[in-house]
Amino acid sequence: MTDTTYLKKRVGQCCRHMDDEGLDVLLLTKPANMFYLTGDGRLCAYAMITRDGKVALGVPSTDVADVTAAARFDHITGFEDEVGMIHSIAHYFSHFAIAEGSVGLEYTFLTQSMMGMLTHPHAKPEGVAPRDCTHILSAMRMVKEPAELGRLRAAAAVADAGMAAAVSAVKAGATESQVAAAAEYAMRHAGAEDFWRSYVSSGPRTNIAHGLPTNRELEAGDLVMIDIHPIVGGYSSDICRTVCVGAPTAEQQAAYDLYLRAQQATIAKIRAGVGMVELEQTMHGILGDAGHGDHVFGPPIHGVGIEFEEAPLPPGHAFFHGEKEPPPLPANAVISVGNCGLYTGPWGVRVEDTNIVGQDGPETLTRYPRELVPA
Amino acid sequence: MTDTTYLKKRVGQCCRHMDDEGLDVLLLTKPANMFYLTGDGRLCAYAMITRDGKVALGVPSTDVADVTAAARFDHITGFEDEVGMIHSIAHYFSHFAIAEGSVGLEYTFLTQSMMGMLTHPHAKPEGVAPRDCTHILSAMRMVKEPAELGRLRAAAAVADAGMAAAVSAVKAGATESQVAAAAEYAMRHAGAEDFWRSYVSSGPRTNIAHGLPTNRELEAGDLVMIDIHPIVGGYSSDICRTVCVGAPTAEQQAAYDLYLRAQQATIAKIRAGVGMVELEQTMHGILGDAGHGDHVFGPPIHGVGIEFEEAPLPPGHAFFHGEKEPPPLPANAVISVGNCGLYTGPWGVRVEDTNIVGQDGPETLTRYPRELVPA
Repeated sequence: MTDTTYLKKRVGQCCRHMDDEGLDVLLLTKPANMFYLTGDGRLCAYAMITRDGKVALGVPSTDVADVTAAARFDHITGFEDEVGMIHSIAHYFSHFAIAEGSVGLEYTFLTQSMMGMLTHPHAKPEGVAPRDCTHILSAMRMVKEPAELGRLRAAAAVADAGMAAAVSAVKAGATESQVAAAAEYAMRHAGAEDFWRSYVSSGPRTNIAHGLPTNRELEAGDLVMIDIHPIVGGYSSDICRTVCVGAPTAEQQAAYDLYLRAQQATIAKIRAGVGMVELEQTMHGILGDAGHGDHVFGPPIHGVGIEFEEAPLPPGHAFFHGEKEPPPLPANAVISVGNCGLYTGPWGVRVEDTNIVGQDGPETLTRYPRELVPA
Repeated sequence: MTDTTYLKKRVGQCCRHMDDEGLDVLLLTKPANMFYLTGDGRLCAYAMITRDGKVALGVPSTDVADVTAAARFDHITGFEDEVGMIHSIAHYFSHFAIAEGSVGLEYTFLTQSMMGMLTHPHAKPEGVAPRDCTHILSAMRMVKEPAELGRLRAAAAVADAGMAAAVSAVKAGATESQVAAAAEYAMRHAGAEDFWRSYVSSGPRTNIAHGLPTNRELEAGDLVMIDIHPIVGGYSSDICRTVCVGAPTAEQQAAYDLYLRAQQATIAKIRAGVGMVELEQTMHGILGDAGHGDHVFGPPIHGVGIEFEEAPLPPGHAFFHGEKEPPPLPANAVISVGNCGLYTGPWGVRVEDTNIVGQDGPETLTRYPRELVPA
């Protein structure tokens, strides 16, 4: 099955969702969604999908030749600037004879300004009402095809290589930023075309929820939290490890062992049909039973795919993505387990791995050793 | 003058803007704006600024100790999740006795989902109307203080180091991603705590507007476009160079020479009081006179500061930022010149540098040599 066949099939599925929901056309600008449906997702571009399966792309005029090679589409337009973009959208509404009905927009992605542009009277016919279409793309992207699983496995192998390099760079005197440098350099040389922002925190900074790297120098006895996300062939992986500079205290080791036990017990429950909430409760339950119920932050589980955080997502996190509650996990969904962390106050620990939801159990893709004191 | 004094002065200026516009409170979630006003800008957090200068911060409960050390504020709240966040926002509206009037929100940053959360009836009093406040923060951040200029100079030196490493990595057989790796590794080791996404494109890919790196291998005769943006002490720099793998054709050299001439002529016109449009017309004019008027994409000039693309911005680019037209450039604004590129079809060239708007002329901060064939 070629990529083009996949894309055609995906557009067909998308049209059935649009039928079910009475949407006449989608107007997508989120690169990940455009990539999934058309084979190309770039900045400053849009894709329109009609209910009968026509695909129109608008891209910067400079990019027309490049996108022609990459994407599956029926129509393509290059525009010089945003006024041209607005007019080209209006042109497609007219060309597809859509003067009333509803257009699906990505409410979890569009800023107020972009929303204003896409719904401008010079872009969208007055009779066409905008509605959120995030959930349609999320539902489709949640279940991975075999070729997607292959790319996710490749991305996980690159994540393991990045983590090995990062852990090798952990030593007193190195900065958090330099640990990130080692991971990123190794991931690019192992085959990543790019990566999402790296998180490296150390010492007291391991207690914060989103520890972006700083120039803080590692000290003996520090914990170091490393969270990296390579992109390989358009697909991502998510791995987090916590390691100690030298020997941990008994308290640090105990917290780490507890967290790892909770994470592994949660992973062990992964199988087709299990609910996100059941997995969350497993993870939170073990931490809570040990007296750490108030020491977690953020959802412990999220999907991984074209984005390193995507559906299935826990419901309601507007800052996170703003999605609705997912169904019981289908086979071939891919989820990261261990995102919530255990934050004790002076320091925190986190271990996170990417897993395929198999019919009868998990396939854990990221495999770098889970040890507070690296061998 | 300490950082805290700066922050107090900035909040005071902000209050005068709010007075002028009749805004009762700002509710900020964009990290760059929060960093500017409070000294701390982190993900999944908010800052409220009242018209009489009170500052309240909400952060993940894990982060309270960390933010206390970093930020300037009168109140701080930790929340466990987004429901807690909504309730803490409601608490501050009540505590500050703001039951009607208007709240400033960042329309160029907030997604529809985040907007829904911040204006939820459980967060915002019904009598308080939301309005865009992007332009207030943009106007304030546009003029840099001496300490900010110092950080921008440091970031530019790191950008030069990154470019030197990237250009050294350019050779047949290396991938675009590996060229990015060299730049990023060097920037982190030269003092960057982080960087914005790197752009590296080669061969035919130099003709696209936003050339993110791929695993394409460089070939003899390829042009390679490298655009990098380190962050040092919270401030960014923006540099782009185009180099050739081996010897360029006469056509490539001529296009490069033309582009560099247009960029340098535009930089030479920088001084306090000059208009963005005048600078744009200089750049576009020289390219247009040479028959390349249709071979540019995107605004040639944008501001640089906490973000690598910020005010002053050309008006109307909703995808870019969605801001209003800036005033004539004030002294100590910082702008990048050369962002539009020259895209001939088979390949493109771009040279971009970060400059301080001086009273009588430019101070160009990024200084890596501008040569199509590196010495």
